[in-house]
Amino acid sequence: MTRTRGRPRRNPGSPTGLGSEQDILHAAGELFVTKGFGRTSTRAIAEGAGLQQASVYHWFSSKDEILLRLVLGTVIPSHRIADRLLESDAPGHVLLWALAYADARLLHEDPQNLGVLYFEPALDGDHFSEFHEVRDSLHEAYRVLLERTTGERATDVDVAMVVGLVENVITYRRRTRSPIPDDTPARVADAALTLARVPDLLTDETRARGTEILAALDPPGPGSVD
Amino acid sequence: MTRTRGRPRRNPGSPTGLGSEQDILHAAGELFVTKGFGRTSTRAIAEGAGLQQASVYHWFSSKDEILLRLVLGTVIPSHRIADRLLESDAPGHVLLWALAYADARLLHEDPQNLGVLYFEPALDGDHFSEFHEVRDSLHEAYRVLLERTTGERATDVDVAMVVGLVENVITYRRRTRSPIPDDTPARVADAALTLARVPDLLTDETRARGTEILAALDPPGPGSVD
Repeated sequence: MTRTRGRPRRNPGSPTGLGSEQDILHAAGELFVTKGFGRTSTRAIAEGAGLQQASVYHWFSSKDEILLRLVLGTVIPSHRIADRLLESDAPGHVLLWALAYADARLLHEDPQNLGVLYFEPALDGDHFSEFHEVRDSLHEAYRVLLERTTGERATDVDVAMVVGLVENVITYRRRTRSPIPDDTPARVADAALTLARVPDLLTDETRARGTEILAALDPPGPGSVD
Repeated sequence: MTRTRGRPRRNPGSPTGLGSEQDILHAAGELFVTKGFGRTSTRAIAEGAGLQQASVYHWFSSKDEILLRLVLGTVIPSHRIADRLLESDAPGHVLLWALAYADARLLHEDPQNLGVLYFEPALDGDHFSEFHEVRDSLHEAYRVLLERTTGERATDVDVAMVVGLVENVITYRRRTRSPIPDDTPARVADAALTLARVPDLLTDETRARGTEILAALDPPGPGSVD
């Protein structure tokens, strides 16, 4: 268990075992998703994290900053994977399958399904431009890989539909009380190639190569996906 | 302009021109979508509608009831269309195309994009079971038409992906500041057939028959789509 830095804690020990900053993010994520961003006070976040309210302000300047960190956490890992896939000289369809699979898997595995926060009106504010930039850049990677796959120009609607299939993991989880099927990420990646209208390229070999390329990317340490 | 029933109005005239009940729904929709459900007071709704707060309680027992009416309005029209399509003996793929097209078109044309409220945590409460039942029943119609199209059993993930393509209209509108392309509903309906893996059935004839069937359903009067 990591020892806390900063202000004195109300309760000994960190609920997440990862220190105050992560405790705050975890408690805030839980409250934002179950009660709503607008109905969550900094005081409630502090209580959820087992901290004094002053400690929350030691780590984050505002509730907006906490929300920003949470939504950035839903796109940065996929964006990093996308950046590395774009450098690969593997065939476009293998890379598109790999990106859709990795991105859908991250959304599937997020314990709090924080993607539901994409619909929070506060995200329209200027504080959140970094989130929108990373997300747009991730979607641009889908466009590039879609074009490499089909050899044709991809329209905004083409890209939106592939992105929509992937982000639908968030909605599907939100809609379904019970856990969604484990094969959802692979099915989503298959559907991305189906939508790209390259049925002949949707093979076990494509899936195997995509999985292999992702395994070679996974750095050991925090943030990697097992 | 419809004259108002009920309590006296603070301002003469109805902002929507449709009377107090619609004024309340319109003002609440605007506030829920732009500020968030949790941060909207009944007082603010009354002000937006140009009414006294007491008038809001004359029409709706609570903010939850207003939210229920708003989200029901996003699924009931499509659900009615689905019910009638299910009775048709036209081929499954024509009906699936028609349902996806009509549903996507309604989501596309909703001036407030109220589907973003699907992510409001309050919808988990018992008050909202009617909404979940109608929405589930709409999704069941997709399952039936998907199975008629392919002749095979559709899994939950199959259905979720087709539904996800359609509901992605909400997310796509939310993500894009400018209006999304006008051909989005038709592209979504095409994509539903592509996902069903019946490329040979995705023809101009399918689209023409689907459009014709929908035109024959449209009842004249309020709620019909031109």
